Amino acid sequence: MKLPILGITMGDPAGIGPEISVKALARQEIYQTCKPIIIGDAGMIAKTLRDLSLSFEVNPVHKIEDAKFSHGTMDVYNLRNVDLEKLHPGEVSDMAGRAAFEAVKTAIDLALAKKLDGTVTGPINKEALNNAGYRFSGHTEIYAHFTGVKKYAMLLVERNLKVIHVSTHVPLKTACDLVKKDRIVEVIQLLNDACIRLGTENPRIGVAGLNPHASDGGLFGREEAEEIVPAILEAKNLGIHAMGPVPPDTLFTMAAGGAYDGCVAMYHDQGHIPFKMIGFNWDERAGKMKSVRGVNITLGLPIIRTSVDHGTAFEIAGKGLASPDALILAIEYARKLALHQN
Amino acid sequence: MKLPILGITMGDPAGIGPEISVKALARQEIYQTCKPIIIGDAGMIAKTLRDLSLSFEVNPVHKIEDAKFSHGTMDVYNLRNVDLEKLHPGEVSDMAGRAAFEAVKTAIDLALAKKLDGTVTGPINKEALNNAGYRFSGHTEIYAHFTGVKKYAMLLVERNLKVIHVSTHVPLKTACDLVKKDRIVEVIQLLNDACIRLGTENPRIGVAGLNPHASDGGLFGREEAEEIVPAILEAKNLGIHAMGPVPPDTLFTMAAGGAYDGCVAMYHDQGHIPFKMIGFNWDERAGKMKSVRGVNITLGLPIIRTSVDHGTAFEIAGKGLASPDALILAIEYARKLALHQN
Repeated sequence: MKLPILGITMGDPAGIGPEISVKALARQEIYQTCKPIIIGDAGMIAKTLRDLSLSFEVNPVHKIEDAKFSHGTMDVYNLRNVDLEKLHPGEVSDMAGRAAFEAVKTAIDLALAKKLDGTVTGPINKEALNNAGYRFSGHTEIYAHFTGVKKYAMLLVERNLKVIHVSTHVPLKTACDLVKKDRIVEVIQLLNDACIRLGTENPRIGVAGLNPHASDGGLFGREEAEEIVPAILEAKNLGIHAMGPVPPDTLFTMAAGGAYDGCVAMYHDQGHIPFKMIGFNWDERAGKMKSVRGVNITLGLPIIRTSVDHGTAFEIAGKGLASPDALILAIEYARKLALHQN
Repeated sequence: MKLPILGITMGDPAGIGPEISVKALARQEIYQTCKPIIIGDAGMIAKTLRDLSLSFEVNPVHKIEDAKFSHGTMDVYNLRNVDLEKLHPGEVSDMAGRAAFEAVKTAIDLALAKKLDGTVTGPINKEALNNAGYRFSGHTEIYAHFTGVKKYAMLLVERNLKVIHVSTHVPLKTACDLVKKDRIVEVIQLLNDACIRLGTENPRIGVAGLNPHASDGGLFGREEAEEIVPAILEAKNLGIHAMGPVPPDTLFTMAAGGAYDGCVAMYHDQGHIPFKMIGFNWDERAGKMKSVRGVNITLGLPIIRTSVDHGTAFEIAGKGLASPDALILAIEYARKLALHQN
């Protein structure tokens, strides 16, 4: 089986992105399942390796063909866009925002040109991004823009939970207005396809209601009857094993226990709250998250994009404390999707 | 220390209410902390004991003063309103709906008359309730109506999570409109008082945002800036340790880890989703919930009311399979609140 080539963007260089990238690629087993290459600044990667006392060679390339894909060497598609003199870990800066953006843009271009089989993104800082002049609310929007895609959705994956969202970064009132039959059918189809590519035949798709108790037969809202039920019926007609609308406070706890292979959330927090309940783990004594697991996948693109779902963690940047677990999972999901791309 | 007298309503007799009531009162330790009395139908309780092969005596009374409050005897404030011939476990009926309502109404009256120090409610079926002519969306609304209270709120408690709700059984769009400063201050105060009565001095109150990322500085919504921040400032001026607005997908996972003593949810599912993620446990092999823990407390009433947060579980009614764990917890919380009532 041919190993897929995966581009891993370094993320904001002032955050934990470079650190988790090299910690992930320090694992030999990664190279047994894929061909990874970091997209970013080779000097930054070399500095990160030194700071972590990791003795890996850096191989800066300007063509994917020049990568070695061999454990012990870290291939870097070198953008030479980080000025180490000016970089301060944990601080928002235009320079870091620009470097982060350019890595993402390059990854998209390389994937569209079929030089990469998939892309995995490290965490970026939205403020730095916007200060540097790039008006996007996140990776998802950058990918949609540069691939020219209108029908896309965010899928979150952690343990038994696979949650797709009808809408994401909009006010909650607006999100209520975006609960429309056609969009719901679209995300059910995207989720169904993704579950199949990730290995589940005939996945059981649980569709949440919008309102409390899924409106309890129309007592608290009409979106279930007018939009969600017709969408589920249409999905069933398409041969999809769609169920619901399920009361939101029941769907996700059931799915966490294995009752559904995928869930449709009607708005950002309906999906993100249960996802972070199982993926994130607060350490009260230390006053910080002790784990931030979970993978974020953009569905509907012509290219593969997976990501960690945590942020730049500026508070621990440069301290050697960051865990690469979420990035390793994101790489694993990109690999699975790449193998079943066609 | 004087033991509080707690009235436990039997719930819908076609559901698991009678079963969990007698299973809870079969535990000797309950009688060491409170004086419990079932409010419902003595014949139904006697039948339930026979069905479960529990050899307890039933003591039907018409005055609280006649109760024995002694383990081995089950005191029942006897409403004589269940026709056992006509009762079918697991079926919605007017008769059962009426019996359930009358138990609740009686509990309220007895508590208002100070014959009870607190009330604990078993699960009712809303359809049966409405079919029997009682137009309420649940216990909370019945209690508010008959105690003449306008400022009340639902608090859910399970392990580290104590979650109060700005609104509950309304469409989500309406819930967005109900996010108003005065109401938020009101629920912060109710939560703060409850946390203190339940044993936490100077509780840390985490207030959720309404919108994704708590609007991310106003990018996705204005309710945080216009209503929630002013409410938190007012609460702080009242000496309450209120914090936020916290992004909704972060607040509850942090609180579950111990970062907050109480949480303010802006709408029903924002609080119910994380609550059921930790309290409910799906058993995929059996195809049912294997645990449904969690206590529901109505705050703001002149009397104490706690409840299980699960439903009538008609699918297992009459089968001897129901767990009394949630009811035992609800009794424990009613006892704690009763001891710190003044």
